[in-house]
Amino acid sequence: MNQLPFFGLTCLRCLSNIHLCSQPRHHHGFKTEPQFSEKYFPQTVDHFNFNSMGNGTFNQRYLITEEFWIKGYGPIFFYTGNEGDIWDFASNSGFITELAAQLRALVIFAEHRYYGRSLPFDKDSFSIPQIGLLTVEQALADYAVMIRELKQQLAATDCPVIVFGGSYGGMLSAYMRLKYPNMVAGALAASAPVLSTAGLGDSGQFFRDVTADFESVASECRDAVRGGFHQLKELARHQDYSHIQSEFSLCKPPSSAQDIQQLNGLLRNAFTLMAMLDYPYSTHFLGTCPPTHGPDLLSSLRNTVGIVYNSTGLLPCFDLYSLYVKCADPTGCGLGLDSLAWDYQACTEIDLCYESNNVTDMFPPMAFTETDRQLYCAKRWGVVPRPNWLKTQFWGDALSTASNIIFSNGDLDPWANGGSLSSSLVALNISGGAHHLDLRGSNDADPESVLSARKTEAELITQWVKMERSRLQRSL
Amino acid sequence: MNQLPFFGLTCLRCLSNIHLCSQPRHHHGFKTEPQFSEKYFPQTVDHFNFNSMGNGTFNQRYLITEEFWIKGYGPIFFYTGNEGDIWDFASNSGFITELAAQLRALVIFAEHRYYGRSLPFDKDSFSIPQIGLLTVEQALADYAVMIRELKQQLAATDCPVIVFGGSYGGMLSAYMRLKYPNMVAGALAASAPVLSTAGLGDSGQFFRDVTADFESVASECRDAVRGGFHQLKELARHQDYSHIQSEFSLCKPPSSAQDIQQLNGLLRNAFTLMAMLDYPYSTHFLGTCPPTHGPDLLSSLRNTVGIVYNSTGLLPCFDLYSLYVKCADPTGCGLGLDSLAWDYQACTEIDLCYESNNVTDMFPPMAFTETDRQLYCAKRWGVVPRPNWLKTQFWGDALSTASNIIFSNGDLDPWANGGSLSSSLVALNISGGAHHLDLRGSNDADPESVLSARKTEAELITQWVKMERSRLQRSL
Repeated sequence: MNQLPFFGLTCLRCLSNIHLCSQPRHHHGFKTEPQFSEKYFPQTVDHFNFNSMGNGTFNQRYLITEEFWIKGYGPIFFYTGNEGDIWDFASNSGFITELAAQLRALVIFAEHRYYGRSLPFDKDSFSIPQIGLLTVEQALADYAVMIRELKQQLAATDCPVIVFGGSYGGMLSAYMRLKYPNMVAGALAASAPVLSTAGLGDSGQFFRDVTADFESVASECRDAVRGGFHQLKELARHQDYSHIQSEFSLCKPPSSAQDIQQLNGLLRNAFTLMAMLDYPYSTHFLGTCPPTHGPDLLSSLRNTVGIVYNSTGLLPCFDLYSLYVKCADPTGCGLGLDSLAWDYQACTEIDLCYESNNVTDMFPPMAFTETDRQLYCAKRWGVVPRPNWLKTQFWGDALSTASNIIFSNGDLDPWANGGSLSSSLVALNISGGAHHLDLRGSNDADPESVLSARKTEAELITQWVKMERSRLQRSL
Repeated sequence: MNQLPFFGLTCLRCLSNIHLCSQPRHHHGFKTEPQFSEKYFPQTVDHFNFNSMGNGTFNQRYLITEEFWIKGYGPIFFYTGNEGDIWDFASNSGFITELAAQLRALVIFAEHRYYGRSLPFDKDSFSIPQIGLLTVEQALADYAVMIRELKQQLAATDCPVIVFGGSYGGMLSAYMRLKYPNMVAGALAASAPVLSTAGLGDSGQFFRDVTADFESVASECRDAVRGGFHQLKELARHQDYSHIQSEFSLCKPPSSAQDIQQLNGLLRNAFTLMAMLDYPYSTHFLGTCPPTHGPDLLSSLRNTVGIVYNSTGLLPCFDLYSLYVKCADPTGCGLGLDSLAWDYQACTEIDLCYESNNVTDMFPPMAFTETDRQLYCAKRWGVVPRPNWLKTQFWGDALSTASNIIFSNGDLDPWANGGSLSSSLVALNISGGAHHLDLRGSNDADPESVLSARKTEAELITQWVKMERSRLQRSL
């Protein structure tokens, strides 16, 4: 029970953090990159129960810069932090500060409860029942209360607030506009899979789209991956475990079908991450297509693992079962606890039952059903997932009464088709874009599609700020 | 600590229930009054914590009638139950069933958790920490989950849902449309004091408006009440307690300033109730104006108490401190627990800090500040009220993104000016109307104003049903 057996549950996000960690932490590539101050906000532990164990406050971390702000007048750009250390999001969302410089905005990056240093019960936060206060609703209420109080403190009550977020953070931005339009004038939800995580759609979509990304580079690329997995399967069928160990630099030889399944999952995640992070510069992974035939098919899989899980070169070998939890520790990110928190969220509200089938995708068949999820989650966290809850609470695809939300997606990003399009809202597709590319800072390698998306985003946000300003002034 | 010292907190609502109880329980005054079936729904105890003590379900009561419904096609009218036994609301909201007969709707009256028979922890429900799961958010989530599941069970997934409610129930209806527009196409929020209960506005408004009601009958009426209170004050100043006891049929003589304050509060509530329930028929209280001068001023106060607290004539004497909690027991309503629940809600989310001052109103000065509230609530329930929470969570007066809500108010109702008007929503004022008169069934004595309001309501609801039907069909 100390290990997290499921891939989709924890590690898609954990891995994306590894990637972030493998870059210098606070690089200064853009002229508008500001100096954030790190602060703590005394936050209500339990917004929804006045008599619970959470009858008090905890320190919620946030980053703030007034560098661009016209004090008391400029808008407030508020990043609704997601599953990780808030510095990582602040360092990889240059678009927000670039736009803040243009619109003279105050910028706040708020850390999500139970992640980074925002632990409501310190080291006991991940025990039962303390973990129970980790929910989407509590996180949104945190942001609402924080916005209200900081506006007060900063004499900014008339300043329009725009929320931003990528991935799960983009879901939170969209939800803020759904549930607290009194507090936020609009949301930019980048690569936010609001539909698929609510159990809407098709469990095969995700890995089908990962496969399509590789296919779009070259169909040989897809075939090479498929071939590599086939060779691994053959080795396993002959129980040639020491060969597998040496090929994949495993710390221990595998010894069961379950170990092989675990290895398959690690590999599948590595390809997924490459697709998610296929940004048009340094992280341009897809170009490195594995060799397309012969005995090298297997080593191509190994190299993929190396690129993704050991980009710093610090791991002497791979441990099949601790790689997820500890994956980023060598890089100093301390992600072990973050991945625990995300595992809990995937066991309660966030539905990540994605499956591969080797028919519509290039991966080995790996089923992950609601029943698998229930069994795991009961055992691990003593909870029963509620598969219908997220779409009840956050409107599913019935978004016709929502307004002022941009759902942006890159067409390389396998999360894109888990997102939402609706005529009454703004949907932006970024051709050639990976996982929330638009939130990243400007780069000479940016394709025209993302430049155009950012331009539209800036125009819309400018308009929302104007509308909200006149609403706030009318209500005086 | 077994007694509830505050008037505004508990008894305004408790008293309105007494009135309801003093009428025959399931009277059949209207041709369209349906036969409801009483059922129970297995409801999630805690929607916002997967690891809490509330890790299971409880039986939530609801009333349902399919009498008018075109099965699988007609709309669903859903009453969001408020602070009491759901039968009382079903019996006093004839307009809903009348409109259901016209629009061929299914009708559901859902009981609010912790009231009536919908007790999540049975007899332990009012202990600490069990009481902690009594919140507005949990109640709304109950209704959302119940609507979702009953639609499924009744093969009614394409049937538009309209929510209805009066008073606190009207607040819940409005909130349902704010927070779950994916589930409900529109709301009729009758006499819903969404502003004042969120701490917006003026703490003197409520009793000023009660006074204005009496004044509108005749200014002598107001003066007589003022005079009566003055005589009581003089008796108390001379410590003429036995006189006071006999005048007011008290079980024990008062013996302190606190007892007198308690008596003043009981009296103030009696006048308040008369204003709230000034319907144009049987309950037409205001006409019975007390005598306007002389020694009879005092007995007029006593008679008011009798009308309100002892309408059944069953109480031999009044107990100053148990009257609120036990007030309706003689009538068989069993409201003792309901008033406990309401007291808790007034100690957490619902702000009822209304004060009288004897300047803008006719009552003795009775202050009730946030500090008074904090002291009481910490002692009684171990909670600290959060005065800013309701307006953060339910948008305060920033309703510009809301749609399809009718806020109806009667101008006799002292709660009216605690409600909300906004150009993007529909505000109906009912001249000569008391507390959610429009929700009551048709009556020959109904004034033109309420007939016209009901007509507008029916037209709007018909339109919402049409729009929602086409939305639901498009999404197939």
